[in-house]
Amino acid sequence: MGKSLGARFDAYDRVDEAPPATSPPMSAPPAAAFAPPDPGFEARVRASFARQGAMRTIGASIGALSPGYCAIELVPRTELSQQHGYVHAGIVATIVDSAGGYAGFTLFPADSSVLTVEFKLNLLAPAQGERLVAEGFVVKCGRTLTITRGEVHGIVGGRRTLVAMMQQTLMTMHGRADAPGT
Amino acid sequence: MGKSLGARFDAYDRVDEAPPATSPPMSAPPAAAFAPPDPGFEARVRASFARQGAMRTIGASIGALSPGYCAIELVPRTELSQQHGYVHAGIVATIVDSAGGYAGFTLFPADSSVLTVEFKLNLLAPAQGERLVAEGFVVKCGRTLTITRGEVHGIVGGRRTLVAMMQQTLMTMHGRADAPGT
Amino acid sequence: MGKSLGARFDAYDRVDEAPPATSPPMSAPPAAAFAPPDPGFEARVRASFARQGAMRTIGASIGALSPGYCAIELVPRTELSQQHGYVHAGIVATIVDSAGGYAGFTLFPADSSVLTVEFKLNLLAPAQGERLVAEGFVVKCGRTLTITRGEVHGIVGGRRTLVAMMQQTLMTMHGRADAPGT
Amino acid sequence: MGKSLGARFDAYDRVDEAPPATSPPMSAPPAAAFAPPDPGFEARVRASFARQGAMRTIGASIGALSPGYCAIELVPRTELSQQHGYVHAGIVATIVDSAGGYAGFTLFPADSSVLTVEFKLNLLAPAQGERLVAEGFVVKCGRTLTITRGEVHGIVGGRRTLVAMMQQTLMTMHGRADAPGT
Repeated sequence: MGKSLGARFDAYDRVDEAPPATSPPMSAPPAAAFAPPDPGFEARVRASFARQGAMRTIGASIGALSPGYCAIELVPRTELSQQHGYVHAGIVATIVDSAGGYAGFTLFPADSSVLTVEFKLNLLAPAQGERLVAEGFVVKCGRTLTITRGEVHGIVGGRRTLVAMMQQTLMTMHGRADAPGT
Repeated sequence: MGKSLGARFDAYDRVDEAPPATSPPMSAPPAAAFAPPDPGFEARVRASFARQGAMRTIGASIGALSPGYCAIELVPRTELSQQHGYVHAGIVATIVDSAGGYAGFTLFPADSSVLTVEFKLNLLAPAQGERLVAEGFVVKCGRTLTITRGEVHGIVGGRRTLVAMMQQTLMTMHGRADAPGT
Repeated sequence: MGKSLGARFDAYDRVDEAPPATSPPMSAPPAAAFAPPDPGFEARVRASFARQGAMRTIGASIGALSPGYCAIELVPRTELSQQHGYVHAGIVATIVDSAGGYAGFTLFPADSSVLTVEFKLNLLAPAQGERLVAEGFVVKCGRTLTITRGEVHGIVGGRRTLVAMMQQTLMTMHGRADAPGT
Repeated sequence: MGKSLGARFDAYDRVDEAPPATSPPMSAPPAAAFAPPDPGFEARVRASFARQGAMRTIGASIGALSPGYCAIELVPRTELSQQHGYVHAGIVATIVDSAGGYAGFTLFPADSSVLTVEFKLNLLAPAQGERLVAEGFVVKCGRTLTITRGEVHGIVGGRRTLVAMMQQTLMTMHGRADAPGT
């Protein structure tokens, strides 16, 4: 696998480009633009996350949470790999879909659930590193639909490499609290 | 969770529609339109699939394979759930991304690898059932880029319900066999 | 432009593939799976289409209409071109977005409007031919959201070439008839 | 049309949200992260843009251009409308597809062409205003594939409203100058 590890994403690598080739503004943290209608949003999001069996199975955890923003972290391991040893694109999708979904859910009313309508994911570099961080940013939060964008970075020695970029549509299910037994 | 199980996807459910509300042609099996350049495509795909640690972790298996087509099966379980108990959208993405990728890989040269450039996934119904079947269909196979579409159905008592639909772009990495140690 | 006309989409063209390299089921006409709640759907769609100034400007017309299905036709001309002389990807998007939107609108109640939430378009071959035909197919029609897929073919001498493929999310705006002055 | 003009996008509008509900970082101009290999990139982009008949037909013009960035402007008018009088989603797609494509093209070698592989567009608000500005930002520029994101804002009295958001994949066609007669 050695050769392909470095070579696999050649298609994306310019020989002659100056690093970093990623436009910086995308990674900026969200401004304090959003006022969550539910002051208990953090406990609500964390309780919902704790009910996602998939997060436990892959070993993902919430790294940061604020109104309109959620970061989910994951340590790459062989059990999550695709055929070349990197983290599978679907596992990358799993953490960034949840990051976007919970970024949106911070802004939803207490008595509601969140549903992913659709998302689109571009894979830009091999998903590897000491850990992956998937960030979801709310772009617009409406009564029925919410639009988010997401980024996944691989972290090595404090240096971030953009490995994936997402655009996502969420739906608010009003009157259905996201809680067991409801 | 009881109420939300049935209610969660109300937004998609018409009160007055005649079943099935899904246009039939989408699920038709692919015609014999593709001639794979590598007669050993099946062994090559199965060996690559076996190297995907993520498939073992979630318990997915290849259900069918032919030129330009791949079906991957998964039995839903709590370890793969989102917050309402259905299979997580990212796990749905994982099986349909692999189904599309291996549908394309059946048509690639022996000395090549497959890379997901991007995909877009719509979630149409709760991902549940006795098993999920993700199907990938090649739409166009080019020298560098290949386009696939995918569907995921939940199966209950032989009845299929469309739970997700995908559109995907793959890249062929020529001269890099998808094999360990290469 | 001569050389690039044939060469531009080389990346998609296999030297050794058997025609057609497109999986046939995608183009099948929709089955009679949908029962439109508004028997006057055809007049309603045609009146709405007639209000789209963009359709007049580019010269597009409705080619076919049935429950859950709409075809829109366009004759390529220099005024609609991108830099190589083919029809611009955005104009291709314009006709297939409308085809998907009106496919959905055939199934909406009389007292409603249709809104495109989002769409994703893959360009597969140069958009050229005697005419382009964009087809929209409803995949699932829900109370709030409707999912469609679309295809655009270039027609030359009765032969169809798939030039683009779309996946789209629509929203039904209930209680707002799609009519002037309402 | 009066009532629906304000009402149509109700689904996206929170009654109780503080303006602006859009996360600010998305609109930041790109940093000087990119070094274009062709110092004549501006003339090359403008010449290519001038060959796009579709841009002339809809009345679009280049508003700004720098390495990895392109802004395209358009004045809304009835000839570009959808059924409610806003600019058609496909016309919005047309300007943001070109903005992303030319953002990428600023970083391509002199002897190359640009091709849109695919894009995904979310519509967030009615496309209206004194003018629309579509911006394309390169996220990653590789040898074969380039990823961009795009935004379209409606401008009224100096105030910007985000009306659409795009994620796009481009391909570099090496050895094929984007010029007439080549």
